[in-house]
Amino acid sequence: MKRILTGDRPTGKLHLGHYVGSLKNRIGLQDSYEVYLLVADLHALTTNTDTSELKQNIKDLVLDQLAVGIDPKKVTFCIQSQIPEDAELAVIFSMLINKPRVERIPTLKDMLRDLKIENPSLGLLSYPVLQAADILMVKADLVPVGKDQASHIELTREIAQKFNATYKKVFSLPEALIPKDTGTLPGIDGKTKMSKSLGNAIFLSDDEKTVRDKVMKMYTDPTRIHPTDPGHVEGNPVFTYLDAFGSTSPSQMRKKVEGYKKQYRVGKVGDVEVKQLLVEVLNKFLGPIRKKRAQLEKEDKLVEKILEEGTRKTREQAVQTLAQVKEAMKLD
Amino acid sequence: MKRILTGDRPTGKLHLGHYVGSLKNRIGLQDSYEVYLLVADLHALTTNTDTSELKQNIKDLVLDQLAVGIDPKKVTFCIQSQIPEDAELAVIFSMLINKPRVERIPTLKDMLRDLKIENPSLGLLSYPVLQAADILMVKADLVPVGKDQASHIELTREIAQKFNATYKKVFSLPEALIPKDTGTLPGIDGKTKMSKSLGNAIFLSDDEKTVRDKVMKMYTDPTRIHPTDPGHVEGNPVFTYLDAFGSTSPSQMRKKVEGYKKQYRVGKVGDVEVKQLLVEVLNKFLGPIRKKRAQLEKEDKLVEKILEEGTRKTREQAVQTLAQVKEAMKLD
Repeated sequence: MKRILTGDRPTGKLHLGHYVGSLKNRIGLQDSYEVYLLVADLHALTTNTDTSELKQNIKDLVLDQLAVGIDPKKVTFCIQSQIPEDAELAVIFSMLINKPRVERIPTLKDMLRDLKIENPSLGLLSYPVLQAADILMVKADLVPVGKDQASHIELTREIAQKFNATYKKVFSLPEALIPKDTGTLPGIDGKTKMSKSLGNAIFLSDDEKTVRDKVMKMYTDPTRIHPTDPGHVEGNPVFTYLDAFGSTSPSQMRKKVEGYKKQYRVGKVGDVEVKQLLVEVLNKFLGPIRKKRAQLEKEDKLVEKILEEGTRKTREQAVQTLAQVKEAMKLD
Repeated sequence: MKRILTGDRPTGKLHLGHYVGSLKNRIGLQDSYEVYLLVADLHALTTNTDTSELKQNIKDLVLDQLAVGIDPKKVTFCIQSQIPEDAELAVIFSMLINKPRVERIPTLKDMLRDLKIENPSLGLLSYPVLQAADILMVKADLVPVGKDQASHIELTREIAQKFNATYKKVFSLPEALIPKDTGTLPGIDGKTKMSKSLGNAIFLSDDEKTVRDKVMKMYTDPTRIHPTDPGHVEGNPVFTYLDAFGSTSPSQMRKKVEGYKKQYRVGKVGDVEVKQLLVEVLNKFLGPIRKKRAQLEKEDKLVEKILEEGTRKTREQAVQTLAQVKEAMKLD
């Protein structure tokens, strides 16, 4: 089985946008690949040094993933800050890549712009190199990324190539795994991306009432004033959500979605009715997730045990990689 | 006893310039302080990724220091790349300092200019932060530095302060220890600084004949053409060396140096005679160092044992510091 490294910054509870953008794909990967799932707490520090909620965020991140169906028997969960070899490799790799090259990475530029960061921390500038260490320490073959993040894998490949050429062939070149069917889910405010920090997210752990309240205040078609006006389905967040989550719904519900689309276009159904259908669809989807999460939360130290076991396994691989690296460099 | 962290990049054999600039001072420190002596092999990588001579360079660095009188019973030798906690702290500290601040460090700018580096590695940009980790991992109170390097200690203090303020007081603020009586020794070619890479160095391990040959081709007073011309003593490398090493010579030799100075100024002594005196002075100084080095080289695995023992001791302290750091950050 080919090996995959993927992961997330533990910044809070996961939401529907995470599900559509990566979790859904991740659930499918665990059966065909050996997956390492990194809880990237050091990466979280690159933009926020406040760690007061870190432990809770890590717990939520793991619970949410378990609840949607990531299986800790198939996937290796691990915590970045508990793998010293990752930091050691990052320091070593930082010698092999020049600063202007790192500064040119488009995602880094986007991040500075989006987060309005004028003076990035040195850690933020260096995070693509730490990411290269994440990937190379477990010698991952594939890294699932969005199209916009393919440049990171390119940097990782450059570092691996530079290392091999300078010292000795230790690394194969990992490849980006760009999934076909994922997309980004807009926020409930209609903004392009659902995001916790924008306050426009529906969380996987939101209860029924919260989901209803959030859906009821969702943006729809701004050009439509009366339920009898012809409305737009494309670009209408409510229908985008219905499309994204309707496919997992019973056939009766799916038919209803298609029917509403037709009616909406000709002004025969109101926003409120469509939203009520979305509430149904989402609660149908989230119900089992909520239930599983509640069960898992009751299990004593479950997350701790999963992380401890997975981190131990990851370190075994990382220790081996670092030993090869140091031997090749005559640093042993 | 207050604790000191100091060290060197293992880039080759040590020379008279090292002796005057740091070793002489270091020998004095070992009796009054608890000294950690870092073999900074990761720092060496920031400007040169070729490690083919690294092991020999490390051996030479340690042997040269033992030969001049650094006592491994008093001083703790340690290898940077064998202390994973150092790299971990560096990665953590990189979150606490911003990139423009690091780029403003004057020594970094000088280094880029001197080494004609247009595209520094990310590791070179980050090296002051790794240095902060070197210092703070052992919680050094003092760091001996040249005046031009005081800015590094300033950065270390800023990082320590930022850490304490963001999380919890873990660090005291280290101070720069700027020695009074050290200076820089010019090269045998008269250039301001003796340096291996400039090819103008007399090494502590050079044999008698090599010392003689190097001294005999030394630059002296370029304005003096005949031995009967009045000559300049100030700024004349031969006299600079005589002053630097004459003080440790027998009184008879010291008197001869003073006599030659007077005679040189009025054109009563030739360059060759003064150089012959310098050969005598240097070989008198280097004789016992060479002898001790030869003895030490014969001892099986001496350097390895010293480094292993010292690195183990240093790690004990570093592990403790990192645990405090992680506990304060809730990364434990």
